[in-house]
Amino acid sequence: MAELNKSWILRQRPVGDLKEGDLELVEAPLEPLKDGEVRTRLIYLSLDPTNRIWMSDVDGYLPPVGIGDAMRGGGLAEVVESKFDGLKPGDIVNTGLATWSLYSNLPGEALNALPRLPGVPLTAYMGPLGATGMTAYFGLMDIAKPKAGETVVVSAAAGAVGSMVGQIAKIQGCRVVGIAGSDEKCRWLTETAGFDAAINYKSENVGAALDEHCPDGIDINFENVGGKIMDQVIARLNDFSRMPLCGLISTYNATEPVPGPYSFSNLLMRRTLLKGFIVIDYFPRFPEGIQQMAQWLMEGKIKFETDIVHGLENAPGSLSRLFEGKNLGKLIVQVSEPPEV
Amino acid sequence: MAELNKSWILRQRPVGDLKEGDLELVEAPLEPLKDGEVRTRLIYLSLDPTNRIWMSDVDGYLPPVGIGDAMRGGGLAEVVESKFDGLKPGDIVNTGLATWSLYSNLPGEALNALPRLPGVPLTAYMGPLGATGMTAYFGLMDIAKPKAGETVVVSAAAGAVGSMVGQIAKIQGCRVVGIAGSDEKCRWLTETAGFDAAINYKSENVGAALDEHCPDGIDINFENVGGKIMDQVIARLNDFSRMPLCGLISTYNATEPVPGPYSFSNLLMRRTLLKGFIVIDYFPRFPEGIQQMAQWLMEGKIKFETDIVHGLENAPGSLSRLFEGKNLGKLIVQVSEPPEV
Repeated sequence: MAELNKSWILRQRPVGDLKEGDLELVEAPLEPLKDGEVRTRLIYLSLDPTNRIWMSDVDGYLPPVGIGDAMRGGGLAEVVESKFDGLKPGDIVNTGLATWSLYSNLPGEALNALPRLPGVPLTAYMGPLGATGMTAYFGLMDIAKPKAGETVVVSAAAGAVGSMVGQIAKIQGCRVVGIAGSDEKCRWLTETAGFDAAINYKSENVGAALDEHCPDGIDINFENVGGKIMDQVIARLNDFSRMPLCGLISTYNATEPVPGPYSFSNLLMRRTLLKGFIVIDYFPRFPEGIQQMAQWLMEGKIKFETDIVHGLENAPGSLSRLFEGKNLGKLIVQVSEPPEV
Repeated sequence: MAELNKSWILRQRPVGDLKEGDLELVEAPLEPLKDGEVRTRLIYLSLDPTNRIWMSDVDGYLPPVGIGDAMRGGGLAEVVESKFDGLKPGDIVNTGLATWSLYSNLPGEALNALPRLPGVPLTAYMGPLGATGMTAYFGLMDIAKPKAGETVVVSAAAGAVGSMVGQIAKIQGCRVVGIAGSDEKCRWLTETAGFDAAINYKSENVGAALDEHCPDGIDINFENVGGKIMDQVIARLNDFSRMPLCGLISTYNATEPVPGPYSFSNLLMRRTLLKGFIVIDYFPRFPEGIQQMAQWLMEGKIKFETDIVHGLENAPGSLSRLFEGKNLGKLIVQVSEPPEV
């Protein structure tokens, strides 16, 4: 009996939080492989806040996923069949923007076999060496341009992007303050990731804590969250501050219009540079970012955590972990067995 | 009898709109002139939206004017007495940040005698060749970096800054759409200043009008106003758009916190560069900007209007013209007679 593919299909646009029935797991025969393509079997599926944007019919940075189409997404996959000269079965690739499917037929030209780095687990390609690591690297280094001695605040600091931002900023000689949603995350930030301070926004007064931990104001706000926390941070920005605008996760499930920050006028008074960015814009520069991050990883200067859920069937139900702040580090669905190291 | 000075003193911080009694016109003897100083008599006082910021005890870009101190401001003045080698009586200078006073003693080192340009009235130094012209020039050219064929929207378009922004953008080959508050202003924008279109926000649906006049979206939003109009513009920004944040005049008289734009998330989705700026940051580069603007002026490529009120005693009462949208072009108080040309 021929093996079947499994894909999550978008059946209806979620209203507010993603609910059962918005997506459906469907089995279908494998599609024939064309010349130039490789068939991949997904090992790790990346779950990211931006997945939720793609399900809504909003004016996002990519068109929304069509109703009846497989959910957009990607991760690490193993080549199982190849009609492309540059890749062979057993190669591990980053699929880029594919779908929430066990098997995918992908153009080989867009893929590279990932090198294995000594002492670095394969999951690093889902974190520091993957899209979230590149988001942190380019957002901080290319937009914010940190200088030694500056104060950097990062929200969703224990998340896949935030935890990298803070550690890269520390390597640059900055004072780093993270905002996260549990004492456990805050401990990880200061004890493992080397942050100077961490603020639990669920139990602390964020404004007062920022005043305490940022006595010289805030030079860089790496924004992942939006909402009231962002408002508090913007109100404390220094002259000529920079604000890479990476995400607004607090608003992605909103069903009503969300006001911008009440401290908006401070962007004028403080002459702040705010720059929205999406990591795909940096795709041509990924090799540069991966090389630098890989070096720091091998030097032990970057720690990372993964939050691994098992089984493609659990992908939609696990996405909420991001919005409820349950994950520490990169949220990944292990779809099939990774290769032996 | 010795001549007396006249100065507007800040007596109390205005709540909302500036009211009678907030400032008081006081006479006092002239102060003795020190070595290195010049005594100037004010000819033209500049009235600008930012004056209102300086009266409030808010976290602005400069400390607020102290209660009991002369109101901050400046304009064109004539040197009437000099203890500084580089300046002589009769020279015309731009005072920079001085006060709302008939006479001022100023350090000569910070001043330059302004050259008279053929065919260009002295008031050009209050507009295209003054702080508002430099605001337009550097905000547009240095931050927004317009490219031919792009669409530029400017709010408060018939004001001193906005009218320059639009004309400079036209020189750069852009499509320019201005937003202003009367049919008379809109006519001036399209018929005299060469804008491609103008929107009367008091009588038109701004969103629909933007859709009509910006069929290819908006590449540059030169923001002077804030509030609901800004919200409509941000919602229509293109990918990789730029937004020099120059002013938020709609909020300066607010007595309650003002929400930021509901379209804030579009700054992320469209990868917008937003940059707050204050023209004083560009002071070292003024010669470059003045040279370029003077050339365009002499070539007849830049038109400008002045709205001249007479008498220092009318300064506070005239400031409201800016907030009520009554002025077309640069609002100036003529404090004493200008020299014969």
